[in-house]
Amino acid sequence: VLQGGGVPPNVDSRERSGERVANRIVVLGSCGAWPEPSRACSGFYIECQGARVVLDLGYGTLPRLLSLLDSPAGDGLDAVIVTHRHPDHMVDLHGLMRARWFARRSSPAIPLYAPAGVVTSLLELEEGHAAAIRRVFDWHALPQQRYRVGPFMLESWPLPHHVPNAGVRLTSSSSVIAYTGDCGPDPAVATLAAGADVFIAEATDRDLQPGTWPPGSAPKLHMGAAEAGRAAASARARLLMLTHFWPGYDRERSRALATAHFNGKVVLAEDGLEIPLP
Amino acid sequence: VLQGGGVPPNVDSRERSGERVANRIVVLGSCGAWPEPSRACSGFYIECQGARVVLDLGYGTLPRLLSLLDSPAGDGLDAVIVTHRHPDHMVDLHGLMRARWFARRSSPAIPLYAPAGVVTSLLELEEGHAAAIRRVFDWHALPQQRYRVGPFMLESWPLPHHVPNAGVRLTSSSSVIAYTGDCGPDPAVATLAAGADVFIAEATDRDLQPGTWPPGSAPKLHMGAAEAGRAAASARARLLMLTHFWPGYDRERSRALATAHFNGKVVLAEDGLEIPLP
Repeated sequence: VLQGGGVPPNVDSRERSGERVANRIVVLGSCGAWPEPSRACSGFYIECQGARVVLDLGYGTLPRLLSLLDSPAGDGLDAVIVTHRHPDHMVDLHGLMRARWFARRSSPAIPLYAPAGVVTSLLELEEGHAAAIRRVFDWHALPQQRYRVGPFMLESWPLPHHVPNAGVRLTSSSSVIAYTGDCGPDPAVATLAAGADVFIAEATDRDLQPGTWPPGSAPKLHMGAAEAGRAAASARARLLMLTHFWPGYDRERSRALATAHFNGKVVLAEDGLEIPLP
Repeated sequence: VLQGGGVPPNVDSRERSGERVANRIVVLGSCGAWPEPSRACSGFYIECQGARVVLDLGYGTLPRLLSLLDSPAGDGLDAVIVTHRHPDHMVDLHGLMRARWFARRSSPAIPLYAPAGVVTSLLELEEGHAAAIRRVFDWHALPQQRYRVGPFMLESWPLPHHVPNAGVRLTSSSSVIAYTGDCGPDPAVATLAAGADVFIAEATDRDLQPGTWPPGSAPKLHMGAAEAGRAAASARARLLMLTHFWPGYDRERSRALATAHFNGKVVLAEDGLEIPLP
């Protein structure tokens, strides 16, 4: 008998079959601000030591996350981490909330690590229905010194942006992943990314758009690829993945800007791209 | 020289090449409540007599709309119609707003036809930045007796739902399109859809989910496929397109429920499906 409006019960078929799941990061979306045609905004799916974590869920990312989980109800997700409340980083978190509320109301809440503004934004989208949010998510505030998240230690730092933004660092026994969210240049970025196997950094280059950053306008609340490259070099990161590309921007230009400052490996985030983790 | 952060200037390449554009409806997304894996929520793109109109923009629909427009800035869209404020019908409207604000701030505003709650929800997502909304959209309240929208006369009716919802009817010299948005059964639905060439109706069947509609709970604020079929029969519609399917529900079951009451053509909405218009 089907439960939850036809959504099948929560069974991880890969665990049942004993299949070995590789450690990996899959890019759900690579655009900043709004999605380009056929692309989505910020979102990264992580599988590590059998745990599944998602970092940010911007416009268009949820259908892709559910495909990777192979579950319309979002079963199998161990934790959600959201860096800040802007919709290009969190609007589809609300869709995930609806999936759990409608199809898995009696399941354990999913741990959600996010600044308070993310919860406020969920509340507004749900017209103040706080009970749904509490039932579905077990919220933990960011930034915070450290949390245990599956195989990871999660550390986070406040980074300069228009709204509170938490840069995050995930450390397992086998790998380190660091992610800026959206932030202006800050010494904490190199700390966050120190020795990271994968350093995911925003590269919001907008210099082709006239008037975006008028001279003397400070502080800057986004990093471009050059600043991401400098931070990766200071951090001695192993791999720098540039993301949060401005719609229509020439991504190869961002790559060139980063490689001028960082001589490690530079990868351009692309929707569906998979990066193996140690 | 590129403008707007690399987004190319507003030129309709099909018009330049003189290509004949057929009248059609393209389904951007077919799910209700939240998107299934690889599918999106409610959204319908209409091309008619050279005009381009979008009906609803739920989770995951914007990248598909921008692909059809072949423009990361959303150029070429003549009007947006949104039936109600629930995120599965409007959250990607906010992404479209960002596209216009960041890439086309000095372009004429796009006419937006929607209940007031949709504008409230945009404001909340944009943290109260009303100037951006006014610059990007020229808002007209629904329901309202009638508006002129490109080649269409737009008529709308208040229909019963949890929040104000406007059913819409678009009449051109060649065709009639009707769309319920989300609503419980109501005599106005048959008026709305009278003789429609394409009647798009929600079919939110959830009878496999225990406890969804407890006995005696009235009024119902969604239609199932049986009710959509009854309304299509009363309206003598030519084609009934069922949509807003509950994630995981067997859509063929909805088809059977509708055809038991309506002996015209029944089509199941599917992401990417194209329906020709007269």
